[in-house]
Amino acid sequence: MSILVVGSVAFDTVETPHGKVENVLAGAATYFALAASYFTKVRIVGVVGEDFGAEQEAIFLNRGIDISGIERAPGRSFHWKGEYTGSMNEARTLDTQLNVFAEFEPKIPAQYQDSEYLFLANIDPRLQLRVRQQMPKVKMVCGDTMNYWIADHAAPLAEVLKELDVLLINDGEARMLAGVHNLVKAAEAIIAMGPKSLVIKHGEHGATAFFGENSFTGAHKLSRPFRAPTLPLAELVDPTGAGDSFAGGFYGYIASQPELTPAVFRRALFYGGVMGSFACERFGTDRTARLTRSEIEERFEIFKEISHLEHQPA
Amino acid sequence: MSILVVGSVAFDTVETPHGKVENVLAGAATYFALAASYFTKVRIVGVVGEDFGAEQEAIFLNRGIDISGIERAPGRSFHWKGEYTGSMNEARTLDTQLNVFAEFEPKIPAQYQDSEYLFLANIDPRLQLRVRQQMPKVKMVCGDTMNYWIADHAAPLAEVLKELDVLLINDGEARMLAGVHNLVKAAEAIIAMGPKSLVIKHGEHGATAFFGENSFTGAHKLSRPFRAPTLPLAELVDPTGAGDSFAGGFYGYIASQPELTPAVFRRALFYGGVMGSFACERFGTDRTARLTRSEIEERFEIFKEISHLEHQPA
Repeated sequence: MSILVVGSVAFDTVETPHGKVENVLAGAATYFALAASYFTKVRIVGVVGEDFGAEQEAIFLNRGIDISGIERAPGRSFHWKGEYTGSMNEARTLDTQLNVFAEFEPKIPAQYQDSEYLFLANIDPRLQLRVRQQMPKVKMVCGDTMNYWIADHAAPLAEVLKELDVLLINDGEARMLAGVHNLVKAAEAIIAMGPKSLVIKHGEHGATAFFGENSFTGAHKLSRPFRAPTLPLAELVDPTGAGDSFAGGFYGYIASQPELTPAVFRRALFYGGVMGSFACERFGTDRTARLTRSEIEERFEIFKEISHLEHQPA
Repeated sequence: MSILVVGSVAFDTVETPHGKVENVLAGAATYFALAASYFTKVRIVGVVGEDFGAEQEAIFLNRGIDISGIERAPGRSFHWKGEYTGSMNEARTLDTQLNVFAEFEPKIPAQYQDSEYLFLANIDPRLQLRVRQQMPKVKMVCGDTMNYWIADHAAPLAEVLKELDVLLINDGEARMLAGVHNLVKAAEAIIAMGPKSLVIKHGEHGATAFFGENSFTGAHKLSRPFRAPTLPLAELVDPTGAGDSFAGGFYGYIASQPELTPAVFRRALFYGGVMGSFACERFGTDRTARLTRSEIEERFEIFKEISHLEHQPA
């Protein structure tokens, strides 16, 4: 089944204690698409400038990702510059140049209309809504957002939340959105805003999923949360894109399955963690663009090994 | 098998957003002993003052805990006063009165000499060492420490670490002890200091165990870490004692088993999380002192349900 992702395709300049890269392919839609591409067909809607060339195209095309929906505009692509220091839990933004992204107005190509799964990456909730309206027949909608939209664009974001099957955000965003510190209470409040399910990402401490009444297809029910681990990494080279890669692994796996059952959701969370852990191991898309499915399955087994009581190491 | 715990038996005055209690029975050894008592026989060595009476004794005796090693001294018991606000991740200490604890010199009674499992709760590492020396024949030694000893009493603490089968500390303590932020690297550094295994507690995000070469009895080996969940709680009434209750559940379960295998260690981490989660649900020892083994088993199943891919909710 095809996933359509709408979001940023960008260039990043990133410095971490492990080194520095300049103007490497990045952006939420990029990380998401690459991670999801190991599980299902992926299509992108985004906008790039004249600096997006054959080298960047190849990274997508090598993974079989359909980039016919990436609009080319005069000027430069979105550029972000940031650094990670100390705990590396959060990036410090040094520079943001929206460039062609400032005027981005997503248009869904005719050949993408049969996409059954829609992912609204972190962009202006007004754009997320307009994308959703162009895709009335999708089977499932997942989305992301960030503190900027939560703080200053609450009204359109509230409309987006009503459209979501799953919202994926981090601890800080969940607390900010709900206005309450306790994550269980925050999750209840957020699910009351519209999303059928909520995945809260805890960075190095894994992720927790909370389920509303209609989280699953069919008669499946699950009332308790579910906690997925992450792999403790000795070398966190570059956490940029880890959250989007998590979303890509999570949603890619769901889209590859016939039905959204509790068992599928759980495994999807593990695949999310797996793809997020790979993303941190190299700068930019270096690791996520060059994986094999067997490397992914191997790490999935490691995730089971480090979290399951009865699992026997191979 | 009997566990001997040496540590503080105290009175706490605690305020949280959920209310306030004054002069309730507390202390690391108390929480540890109560939690461990559901799994195995527990003996305590500590010191109390004249304010420790029949009411406090009953809390231990109702759980079958041997308190003949609790020394009675003239004066008042150790009193701690603290509050939790905001995230409730860390207590703010308002007052500490060591009282009889200031002169505490642990003496192991003859009838405790056959204890096979020793737990050195968070006290002066010099006392931890002297206790260890009085118990040369124990089968296993676990211990705790805190930032105060790590920062200002590094030399005796280094000696204690060499004696430990398992060290149980939290994220902040692990980072401080190792002098490195990354928890995998911190764990490697700490295990090189002596403990065969290390359990790092992440508060609301569970715990991770790291294993050295000789972590297990027999020929068992386990090189990867293991991550145990916690139960997401909507009402964190009072986190005081959660870490000691975790240690009690963890070590109590180990002491109840014939051999320390990887499977036993994993289950012990889950029981640790279970006992820690109960401790947070009421003030003081209210919840931990009044559990049943079936409530504990029920919650253990919930821990499996929220962390295992294939687990079917009952």
